[in-house]
Amino acid sequence: MSAASPGLFITLEGGDGSGKTTQMAALAAWLQERGRTVVQTREPGGTDLGVELREIILHRRGYIAPRAEALLYAADRAHHIATLVRPALARGEVVLQDRYLDSSVAYQGAGRVLEPGEVRDISLWATEGLLPDLTVLLDLDPAVGRARLDSSRTRYDRLEAEQSEFHERVRDAYRALADAEPARFLVLEASRPVDELQASIRDRVSALLG
Amino acid sequence: MSAASPGLFITLEGGDGSGKTTQMAALAAWLQERGRTVVQTREPGGTDLGVELREIILHRRGYIAPRAEALLYAADRAHHIATLVRPALARGEVVLQDRYLDSSVAYQGAGRVLEPGEVRDISLWATEGLLPDLTVLLDLDPAVGRARLDSSRTRYDRLEAEQSEFHERVRDAYRALADAEPARFLVLEASRPVDELQASIRDRVSALLG
Repeated sequence: MSAASPGLFITLEGGDGSGKTTQMAALAAWLQERGRTVVQTREPGGTDLGVELREIILHRRGYIAPRAEALLYAADRAHHIATLVRPALARGEVVLQDRYLDSSVAYQGAGRVLEPGEVRDISLWATEGLLPDLTVLLDLDPAVGRARLDSSRTRYDRLEAEQSEFHERVRDAYRALADAEPARFLVLEASRPVDELQASIRDRVSALLG
Repeated sequence: MSAASPGLFITLEGGDGSGKTTQMAALAAWLQERGRTVVQTREPGGTDLGVELREIILHRRGYIAPRAEALLYAADRAHHIATLVRPALARGEVVLQDRYLDSSVAYQGAGRVLEPGEVRDISLWATEGLLPDLTVLLDLDPAVGRARLDSSRTRYDRLEAEQSEFHERVRDAYRALADAEPARFLVLEASRPVDELQASIRDRVSALLG
């Protein structure tokens, strides 16, 4: 779908503490220096409606049924893509997004009780089939990511509080997704120096910008 | 699915002002007199999470993308069925529910821009395929339903404020659903006297109770 739009849709994926925020900010600055209009956004929570849903999904007390959780992520995604991402791509802008459908498949599908293929299908229905032009996967041992978070933060959300085996399954699921779509994914070992990672990302984005 | 549970799942459908609330209350009283434990509930809003989602869906200001709206209804439904309806059915109780998946198909599918079959599929995924044992459709000319509402209320939600052609399309969609599943649906002309309608409903429920 996105191939038909003049913009560029780039998503960043990886576990918490893998450096998505740092890499996204550096990439945005570099793109802006090159004269591109950049939209930095995230899921869940990239719209006003999404902020309300993000609060429910990540910080609400009490049990949420797994299918309800998956559908709330999909609702956030549907509204975000329809009202923010697609209009920006249609204007020829570059959209940099922290987490997209691969997060749903990795976290809800592989990590929980739902079928990964079903979670993906619901995301694709929500977005009318929008796939990124490029997905950067910052691959990291979950124990390292957790250590990074521990040193910088004191508040954890519901997902971050899950146990370590869960995060191992998420990592495996991410890698399987990248293996299945090698043309869309750029997989980077996130323990490498920040500057080296950024250089690798810029190389790939340069090629896409032509 | 529900055939395997000891309880009975009955849903009431129809436009606003068709008398669902009145018929449900009368049916609940009759069932309780017969010694049945009755759960009266509704969608959206049948759980604590659902109340938050209902507020977003029906009363939030501002545009909500159609697919996001459909997914919010499905999220409410998934949580409601998993945490309230299925446990009650497993205990052998009778669940009387104001609106279920037929509302989604009729209102979102036929009335808006989405494919009815897709809306139904998402509801069935949300509920792991739970269909009611009986669905009572209170069929009514939308103009009559509106007149009833006008005389009893001053506040309208977003759906009620839609124009009359929309409500005509909803009515047609409901009738098509009933035609497609005659064994599940009891279609009643809602302009008939309240007591007559209730008698028809009790006849059918008696047969289901055996």
